[in-house]
Amino acid sequence: MQKIGIGLAGLGTVGTGVYRSLMQNNLLLTERVGLELEIRRIAVRNLSAPRSVQPAPGILSDRWETVVDDPNVGIVVELIGGIDLPFALFQRALKAGKPVITGNKALLAEKGAQIFELAADVNVPVFFEAAVAGGIPIIKSIREGFIGNHLQAIHAILNGTSNYILSRMTEAGIDFPEALQEAQANGYAEADPTLDINGWDAAHKAIILASLAYGFWVDSRLVHVEGIEKVSAADIRFAQDLGYRIKLVATIRADSNSSIEVRVNPTLVPQGHVLAPVNGVFNALMVRGDIVGDTLFYGRGAGQDPTASAVISDLAQAAIWIDSGGKAFGFTPHGLYGKCLPIDDLVSGFYLRLTVDDRPGVLAQVAGILGTHDIGISSVIQPETHDATAVPLVLMIHNAPFGRMRAALEEIKRLACVKGPAILLWILS
Amino acid sequence: MQKIGIGLAGLGTVGTGVYRSLMQNNLLLTERVGLELEIRRIAVRNLSAPRSVQPAPGILSDRWETVVDDPNVGIVVELIGGIDLPFALFQRALKAGKPVITGNKALLAEKGAQIFELAADVNVPVFFEAAVAGGIPIIKSIREGFIGNHLQAIHAILNGTSNYILSRMTEAGIDFPEALQEAQANGYAEADPTLDINGWDAAHKAIILASLAYGFWVDSRLVHVEGIEKVSAADIRFAQDLGYRIKLVATIRADSNSSIEVRVNPTLVPQGHVLAPVNGVFNALMVRGDIVGDTLFYGRGAGQDPTASAVISDLAQAAIWIDSGGKAFGFTPHGLYGKCLPIDDLVSGFYLRLTVDDRPGVLAQVAGILGTHDIGISSVIQPETHDATAVPLVLMIHNAPFGRMRAALEEIKRLACVKGPAILLWILS
Repeated sequence: MQKIGIGLAGLGTVGTGVYRSLMQNNLLLTERVGLELEIRRIAVRNLSAPRSVQPAPGILSDRWETVVDDPNVGIVVELIGGIDLPFALFQRALKAGKPVITGNKALLAEKGAQIFELAADVNVPVFFEAAVAGGIPIIKSIREGFIGNHLQAIHAILNGTSNYILSRMTEAGIDFPEALQEAQANGYAEADPTLDINGWDAAHKAIILASLAYGFWVDSRLVHVEGIEKVSAADIRFAQDLGYRIKLVATIRADSNSSIEVRVNPTLVPQGHVLAPVNGVFNALMVRGDIVGDTLFYGRGAGQDPTASAVISDLAQAAIWIDSGGKAFGFTPHGLYGKCLPIDDLVSGFYLRLTVDDRPGVLAQVAGILGTHDIGISSVIQPETHDATAVPLVLMIHNAPFGRMRAALEEIKRLACVKGPAILLWILS
Repeated sequence: MQKIGIGLAGLGTVGTGVYRSLMQNNLLLTERVGLELEIRRIAVRNLSAPRSVQPAPGILSDRWETVVDDPNVGIVVELIGGIDLPFALFQRALKAGKPVITGNKALLAEKGAQIFELAADVNVPVFFEAAVAGGIPIIKSIREGFIGNHLQAIHAILNGTSNYILSRMTEAGIDFPEALQEAQANGYAEADPTLDINGWDAAHKAIILASLAYGFWVDSRLVHVEGIEKVSAADIRFAQDLGYRIKLVATIRADSNSSIEVRVNPTLVPQGHVLAPVNGVFNALMVRGDIVGDTLFYGRGAGQDPTASAVISDLAQAAIWIDSGGKAFGFTPHGLYGKCLPIDDLVSGFYLRLTVDDRPGVLAQVAGILGTHDIGISSVIQPETHDATAVPLVLMIHNAPFGRMRAALEEIKRLACVKGPAILLWILS
């Protein structure tokens, strides 16, 4: 049976998971693939660091180039993290004719266009199932399973940390800082949770999904990204009263002119929607195709083992490609979709929470400004409060372009009767 | 660009969907695949039957052999239905080196072992995404996405008709005959719903999933199949009181000795389980891998368009195989799992509803028999009733081998105090 050599660049959490899972299920994998997969080289940062797996002596190296260049290595797995260094690795490996597997969503989001152009030039495939939604085979499903579909929309919960925090805020009625602390204490948020909290981890994944779905590599500068820091327990309560849950949702969709929309926002999800019951660290993706209709994928979106499962699936596919040759794949650019819509053109319903003076006429002033911008209100909540000077005013806004909503909000904020920050959230439709 | 010719055998509901969807999204598919797919031959039963699509004159034939034999046809799509005729088609096409795509679950369940043996002999792939769960890419996910996993369990709702009927019985509190009539009136059940109702449609799909997961073709005679006819509104109410929904669930799993279990039963699903909220005609599959953990797939499991989406995905993969060659795939047999467990060895919790005399001592007699078979009771419901002669007695039974449960039940049925049928349902664990 043919043996294919694997080079691992990186032996951190995911690398260790890949190593261990490959050892554990080696026999099964060999039977299924019909080829033997063998880890022959591993690059680590520090040769003498303690580790929970013990690779054979001599296969460790502290230079990733050694891994890529080794003639016994046929497939390179990039698990280093960062941008510049893995980008250099991709270039070197692809030019050497070696397929590369990665879970590095930041790298693909930033350098995907260049990586896939090079991959097409040299006809060597790139695999990245591990970059989005852990062990859920969503890349394969979108690229191959739904290949016959125009993908009309993807609504997805792609960041487990922020979903855990919002779930805890909902269950326990606590505010963001407390829920974040709890997530950190329970190991569901890192010491530096910036990319999880500010929406960019989800946005990197959304860029990858959108690019696969629509055939051009989406420029991250055209993606509208908001984090969950601004969501308060009060917003979650108001949303519940109105029949919604608040989730960090990536929205990816095409309009009838083949322009596309890519954004990540804390979003009001109707309680009957399939994404509404997705709680804790789970990920879920609702994919709507013009032929297949609505489908849902659900599972753990991160973690050592689910991510390792995705890497091993890619290893099998890379090995089969080496064995049989053929056209390289990964990302196929085409010109059937046009461009990303500017943020101001995106149409949505909105939830708006203001803090206003507790005086007659306030609602009339706010509604008046919305009216001059041709923006309709679908419902209003103005709860009773004991603080006579400032009260919350919650408005549910009918579908309107974000640009118009933003302009109206600027005017509303300048009203003398409006105090403190205005919270504007998108509504899933 | 290379063109690849398709032959459709059958232009019924799914065939028409494939034809129409291929026309609709042809440009997109060509861009993504990098090959042009063209329908060149279609076999129909009756050349002069009216149809909603109008293929070019001359491509229709009333002999499927014409489609298979046409040298311009590279891929054959079998959408005829039945067993013998499509089996003959498979043999002829595979021997001619042409990949075959099918959605025929009954055929695969009965003839899978022979079909895949032939496919391996001639090194030509067979594709069958459309055979299970419509447009949900579950075949691809299990075969490729989870290739690195021992699949510990699959719990799946695989028949939309029976799920619709049970959902309506639950929502409306109606009994089976009325819910079936309603399903037929709404087009969710066929005039002859036998295979949907008696569990065999789901069982055919379960056999395919189990065979893929465990590497040997499962003999349909070893599958334990029960239908939903015996479930009554009363059982659904009792189950709800106990915290469960009743669903027709396919259970596929391996024990620690690599023996496997394949069964389809009306099953009590705990209300917090991911399958519990799956209502109406939808399908859902919970797949548990030793590395990936739990994942869920959800969508429409049948219907013209979702099924067409699956066929087109297979067409793309078949075309790429023709273009690049390589090892054929479909089903890879191996010897890592042993055999199907006999039904009597399957261990589960059970729900037992008896109709008994309303007299003291009845529970003691029933519990006594269970005790002599070493079967434990976890809870008992004996609701008050106005019919003094016969009352329901519901018992929740701890995990026990089915064989022991069955033996105990035979004795219980012989008790003088037990009247009418005993309803035994499995509990999902």
